[in-house]
Amino acid sequence: MIKTDILIIGAGPTGLFAVFEAGLLQLRCHLIDALPQPGGQCAEIYPKKPIYDIPGFPEILAGELVDNLMEQIKPFQPGFTLGERAETVEKLEDGTFIVTTNKGTEHQAPVVAIAGGLGSFEPRKPMIPNLKQFEDKGVAYMIKEPEMYRNKRVLIAGGGDSALDWAIFLADVASEVTLVHRRNEFRGALDSVEKVQELKNLGKVNLITPAEVVGLEGNKYLEAVTVRKNSKASEDLRIEVDAFIPLFGLSPKLGPIADWGLEIEKNAIKVDNSLDYQTNIPGIYAIGDVNTYPGKLKLILCGFHEATLMCQSAYQRIHPDKKYVMKYTTVGGVTGFDGSKKEAPKAVVKAID
Amino acid sequence: MIKTDILIIGAGPTGLFAVFEAGLLQLRCHLIDALPQPGGQCAEIYPKKPIYDIPGFPEILAGELVDNLMEQIKPFQPGFTLGERAETVEKLEDGTFIVTTNKGTEHQAPVVAIAGGLGSFEPRKPMIPNLKQFEDKGVAYMIKEPEMYRNKRVLIAGGGDSALDWAIFLADVASEVTLVHRRNEFRGALDSVEKVQELKNLGKVNLITPAEVVGLEGNKYLEAVTVRKNSKASEDLRIEVDAFIPLFGLSPKLGPIADWGLEIEKNAIKVDNSLDYQTNIPGIYAIGDVNTYPGKLKLILCGFHEATLMCQSAYQRIHPDKKYVMKYTTVGGVTGFDGSKKEAPKAVVKAID
Ligand SMILES: Cc1cc2nc3c(=O)[nH]c(=O)nc-3n(C[C@H](O)[C@H](O)[C@H](O)COP(=O)(O)OP(=O)(O)OC[C@H]3O[C@@H](n4cnc5c(N)ncnc54)[C@H](O)[C@@H]3O)c2cc1C
Ligand SMILES: Cc1cc2nc3c(=O)[nH]c(=O)nc-3n(C[C@H](O)[C@H](O)[C@H](O)COP(=O)(O)OP(=O)(O)OC[C@H]3O[C@@H](n4cnc5c(N)ncnc54)[C@H](O)[C@@H]3O)c2cc1C
Repeated sequence: MIKTDILIIGAGPTGLFAVFEAGLLQLRCHLIDALPQPGGQCAEIYPKKPIYDIPGFPEILAGELVDNLMEQIKPFQPGFTLGERAETVEKLEDGTFIVTTNKGTEHQAPVVAIAGGLGSFEPRKPMIPNLKQFEDKGVAYMIKEPEMYRNKRVLIAGGGDSALDWAIFLADVASEVTLVHRRNEFRGALDSVEKVQELKNLGKVNLITPAEVVGLEGNKYLEAVTVRKNSKASEDLRIEVDAFIPLFGLSPKLGPIADWGLEIEKNAIKVDNSLDYQTNIPGIYAIGDVNTYPGKLKLILCGFHEATLMCQSAYQRIHPDKKYVMKYTTVGGVTGFDGSKKEAPKAVVKAID
Repeated sequence: MIKTDILIIGAGPTGLFAVFEAGLLQLRCHLIDALPQPGGQCAEIYPKKPIYDIPGFPEILAGELVDNLMEQIKPFQPGFTLGERAETVEKLEDGTFIVTTNKGTEHQAPVVAIAGGLGSFEPRKPMIPNLKQFEDKGVAYMIKEPEMYRNKRVLIAGGGDSALDWAIFLADVASEVTLVHRRNEFRGALDSVEKVQELKNLGKVNLITPAEVVGLEGNKYLEAVTVRKNSKASEDLRIEVDAFIPLFGLSPKLGPIADWGLEIEKNAIKVDNSLDYQTNIPGIYAIGDVNTYPGKLKLILCGFHEATLMCQSAYQRIHPDKKYVMKYTTVGGVTGFDGSKKEAPKAVVKAID
């Protein structure tokens, strides 16, 4: 059982920044995310694209913003349960919550903050009859640990940035990389497309287009796939592989959270925006893209504000008897759980003679 | 008469960021500030101190944040009325407002956003009988245009960062710089204190401590000051100067805005935080430190969120018939009033062969 002060569901920008604000109040956080990496939409959908409306950044890449947030929250040592989906919630008699993931990991906290964005990112899967049988046995929809593929034969399917970028990355790791796409044209950043072209010319990526994976075989583990070229069964190829990674995009689904008894409106969770972004279940908050209220904007900077006010309320809930007096970070500094301390250089009082 | 879409009172971080959000909606802004420079508290009180809780910046100097915001809003060409205090507001029959400053400058707009922070920064003045007579005639409490002092004889009074920093700056501009302080000890950044010590040793700053300016003389303009050393009239010095600049700090005062018929609570303006941060006078909003609502936190990041939601409501007020569809900056880019256009590099669709 993982125990913490604030259990945050969703490690997008909102959830990440909540760790910082909680840390200033000396509250610890743990985050659950279905994705293998933190950053939510910014990391998954558009890491290399610029955002122009983060206050103070005339321009910042979404991936850079996530890196900066990770750096900012480091002193507060957040815990992470990544690659797992929060599935059920249970309220105990003492008022704390137990949240369990689809893999059975249990978390306990007096406060739950849902920062689930548009929902848990779930992979779009290809229609192959015995696909499920090989999930986690050679078939993966996201890459959590690239080292797993060292010296393995990998087949990636897909025609977008993820497929291109992972083909490029794994060309240096795997013993064999095959990229299969149902068209000849790829859609992605120019330099990614050009890099794959170059790797193909060098024989480092084996390209098969237009083609689709239509069959899988193996005993316990995946051993080979059938690739159909030009939609003609007569051109089927049997390719021996250790891994098949279809990268057809991830689409967010509110999913199990929709059944937690929370008031839902427009596929989002209703909160009290006049106070603290709490839901209809006391102790459960919803912040960032996942919530809704009159005038709601699904913007990153709004999630930051909501996270900040939520933490104040969570503090009151966790420490009903303590009175918290806000101190500016400039004045009070930042004291990490890791023993680190950042603070402004002090003014000196010094005679000039 | 200066005309604009949103007239913003206060050019602190909140007011500045409002220009950006308004610009995304193709609304133009003009800002009024009592200070000679934009940036509010960040620029006036702690420009060289780090802030740790701006999302995405593990650390940023307050002055740097202001510079970044100025850069971010540049495409939207805000107008500025600086060094003047917004004094009166009048609502015309057509629903627009006229705001007039203490210097008589008039501004007209359909929407007024008060981003006045803790209030208009007003200088603390020394108690010298005929001080008022020389205001703007040799006596100044803030430095708007340092070039005004080129080859002039300047006397600065004060013992804090402003006094130190301006003495350092003007040592290269003025023909003579005298620094008077009522103690021998100065209070400021170590390097500023050390720099003044060095300038004094070089004879570039004339230091008189402990001492006070007790008298002013001149005809139309200031010609000389009387400096009393060691609180002893017997040690009075008469120093000929062109300018006397007492820098005893600026303290914010809500001031005239308190009489505009707005609901005031705890020295701040009550707003509807459940919707759009509008005050009890339709068309007048209050954002940032100047407003209050249940759970209000006087933090920069909260001002950013409030400014953003305010602009959406202002848009509806200004264009009641148009429906605004929000577009992410990453997707829609940023189109400035200056003809500039920032946008994310487009994905390509390209065959690999
Ligand atoms: C192409 C694009 C461009 C954009 N441009 C801008 C822009 O310019 N400016 C701007 O402000 N915003 C922009 N956005 C929106 C911005 O990315 C979102 O507002 C932001 O990501 C919301 O952050 P969040 O932390 O609330 O949610 P998300 O980033 O969506 O993160 C939520 C996380 O929660 C996880 N999750 C959800 N449910 C569960 C569960 N049950 N179990 C485990 N994990 C779960 C998800 O997997 C996800 O990682 C853009 C979005 C897109 C797609
Ligand atoms: C030492 C110190 C450290 C701080 N540290 C932090 C921190 O770490 N994190 C954080 O988030 N916040 C911090 N703050 C608070 C932060 O600076 C404020 O929240 C922020 O400046 C508020 O921005 P604003 O734009 O709302 O108002 P302000 O910055 O106060 O700007 C308001 C402006 O309006 C002008 N104005 C007001 N009335 C009038 C009028 N009638 N006519 C003309 N002009 C007018 C004023 O002159 C002023 O320039 C700190 C503050 C101080 C003093």
